Amino acid sequence: MRLTFPYQTDRLGAVRIYGVQHVFELDSDPAEPESYFGTTVSHVPTPAMLAVQRRMAVVIPCRNERLRILDGVLTGLPHATLLVFVSNSDREPVDRFMMECDTIERFCRFARRQAVVVHQRDPGLGKAFAAAGMPELVGDDGLVRHGKGEGMIAGIALALLAGKDYVGFVDSDNFVPGSVNEYVRVYASDFHLAKTRFAMVRICWKSKPKVVDGALFFSRWGRTSETTNRLLNLLLAGYTGFGTDSIATGNAGEHALTMELALRLRLAGGFGIEPYQFVDLFERFGGVDPDTTAPGDHPDLMKEGVQVFQVETSNPHFHEDRGTDHLDDMVNASLSALFHSTAATPDVRTAIEEHVGGPPPPPDPPYPPLSRLDPARFREVLSDGASTFAQFVYPEDLGVPPIPV
Amino acid sequence: MRLTFPYQTDRLGAVRIYGVQHVFELDSDPAEPESYFGTTVSHVPTPAMLAVQRRMAVVIPCRNERLRILDGVLTGLPHATLLVFVSNSDREPVDRFMMECDTIERFCRFARRQAVVVHQRDPGLGKAFAAAGMPELVGDDGLVRHGKGEGMIAGIALALLAGKDYVGFVDSDNFVPGSVNEYVRVYASDFHLAKTRFAMVRICWKSKPKVVDGALFFSRWGRTSETTNRLLNLLLAGYTGFGTDSIATGNAGEHALTMELALRLRLAGGFGIEPYQFVDLFERFGGVDPDTTAPGDHPDLMKEGVQVFQVETSNPHFHEDRGTDHLDDMVNASLSALFHSTAATPDVRTAIEEHVGGPPPPPDPPYPPLSRLDPARFREVLSDGASTFAQFVYPEDLGVPPIPV
Repeated sequence: MRLTFPYQTDRLGAVRIYGVQHVFELDSDPAEPESYFGTTVSHVPTPAMLAVQRRMAVVIPCRNERLRILDGVLTGLPHATLLVFVSNSDREPVDRFMMECDTIERFCRFARRQAVVVHQRDPGLGKAFAAAGMPELVGDDGLVRHGKGEGMIAGIALALLAGKDYVGFVDSDNFVPGSVNEYVRVYASDFHLAKTRFAMVRICWKSKPKVVDGALFFSRWGRTSETTNRLLNLLLAGYTGFGTDSIATGNAGEHALTMELALRLRLAGGFGIEPYQFVDLFERFGGVDPDTTAPGDHPDLMKEGVQVFQVETSNPHFHEDRGTDHLDDMVNASLSALFHSTAATPDVRTAIEEHVGGPPPPPDPPYPPLSRLDPARFREVLSDGASTFAQFVYPEDLGVPPIPV
Repeated sequence: MRLTFPYQTDRLGAVRIYGVQHVFELDSDPAEPESYFGTTVSHVPTPAMLAVQRRMAVVIPCRNERLRILDGVLTGLPHATLLVFVSNSDREPVDRFMMECDTIERFCRFARRQAVVVHQRDPGLGKAFAAAGMPELVGDDGLVRHGKGEGMIAGIALALLAGKDYVGFVDSDNFVPGSVNEYVRVYASDFHLAKTRFAMVRICWKSKPKVVDGALFFSRWGRTSETTNRLLNLLLAGYTGFGTDSIATGNAGEHALTMELALRLRLAGGFGIEPYQFVDLFERFGGVDPDTTAPGDHPDLMKEGVQVFQVETSNPHFHEDRGTDHLDDMVNASLSALFHSTAATPDVRTAIEEHVGGPPPPPDPPYPPLSRLDPARFREVLSDGASTFAQFVYPEDLGVPPIPV
């Protein structure tokens, strides 16, 4: 893969946010040495990309997605990555989860892969989180709460059990397998370029095709992203003193984290998970608020710093249209988290009040960092009690051992 | 890449047409040995695919395409292939060809690639074809005739000069770089699997998104393809005695040929080029018509046989909507070529008459095979006389020699 080397940088405390990188070639020459072209274009040779992918889990959260589309998403996943599938699909009257497992099992059989699956609402999963130090994730019914963020957190926990060092997310509603493939290549390329153990890669799209007046229009930004990005940039500029448009991925559903960073972030539930990552980075590692910044807890992170990569993919983002409800949820979650953040500046608060016509209600508190999870205990309770927790292990005939989750 | 091994086979004389193959993984594990999974799923490891790509030119014929879209198509081209760009874009009042060259030059600079470009209506190109044994391609004005097929023939000639053993085609109006990438991976995978020097790979699409009532609908077939495929299958069944639906790529714009086969086919002009390949295979190598089958001319081909691979890609085909004019041209070209073919059966002729309401007018005759071209003479006249014929050669700083075209 060949993409621009990130050069524009905004810094806030230990956090470095790079300007958007562009993709020049999906398939570069594996024989060409790395970074050959000096500093402006990064060449990440296939073997380097592959080495990262072998240490990566790709989490697909899914809720009642059409199986034909899920099929395509699977086709795009680079072979070297571990598939972690967390479903919150209906099990009544038709057991959609069973059908998803069937699809994944067939994919693993034909493509000779391994996968880990679990249903988000499996009582055994809730019990495991409650027992292993993360009871906040579990509702009064003893089940992991509904929400995309909650499913993603479960995915990170499974990736941790599998011993992976990187965890990437791919939505299950993507129509274009080639763009799924590009996301995971981009994740691996930037992790290869990262200089710290605390890195994040966030995707923005070249364009998002929409149907306008019966024809396709390639819009540059969604409305939600526009608002979230504008306010995040306003916050950043308030501290650095320089106006900026560097944040372009406030609502990036497609993103990836090093496990070291994933375990230390406080993650939000629902659709707020993606924008809240910026808020948490600013609050706790941005050095803007002495009360919440706790360098004593994370001396290694504060020293090495966090790198946030942002990449514009070459493929259009062409996905299922789910109406505007979840967009509204997303923008509300972003704005209230930002408004009530201890990192928010008066300018940002004013801008949000103007946007929503008054102060937004306080958001649900984020979940504590996953570093609190006791992996051994989680593994034990999960294996004993979760009936939907399964592994598909191919090639069977070679006796390849299952992943130790 | 992982795809089904073709098992369904229809045979007609020296021609074998395989049933549609499906793609299971875009990125398989390069470390996994080839065809590991026995005979039902083919695993073509990256190094094997790459070895073919290094011997392949990808021809992009272009006419007044939006440059933003061309940009994306370039991003998807695997690095190891040689880009051959044949433009028939307007040069007045704005010189679109100049803008295209600028785009390609920038792409080659950033991606460190080589490319060969020419304008289809360059008087020097017409002169070169006329002088080197292909005057049929040239109109009364001394220029290569208009038409997509004619541009593709020019592309094959340039690939031949560059010493390539394979030539693939990719349309310039594709919105999804990832699908361009998949096409070229598919070409290389099947050429790797081919057992003869005379092979062809044709693409059909999983789906073709259309705007229907303001929403996207994923249709399985275009109307044009449906008609062409039905009639080609009817013809095939007339000879074999077994009804078949094996031909699924009658109008495949995306296809690739071994150079050995490309030089021996009679190619049609305009939009008829793709379906006519089947007609020519049936007439000359299908053994159905003693007058046109000339085994004496092609003893090696008749002995080794022709393999026609057909692959359904995992990516949807998501391209510029050019209205129905060129579709009508395409279906008319297909039907009249088929109707007037010496290989056509009475059943096929009757079906066509029913479809168009009477016998269609005879088609323009195809061009003679490119094997008649004298490459040395073509190179000489082209280099001397074609002002738009250019090469972009990167990396410049390494003194990489230009391709010997």
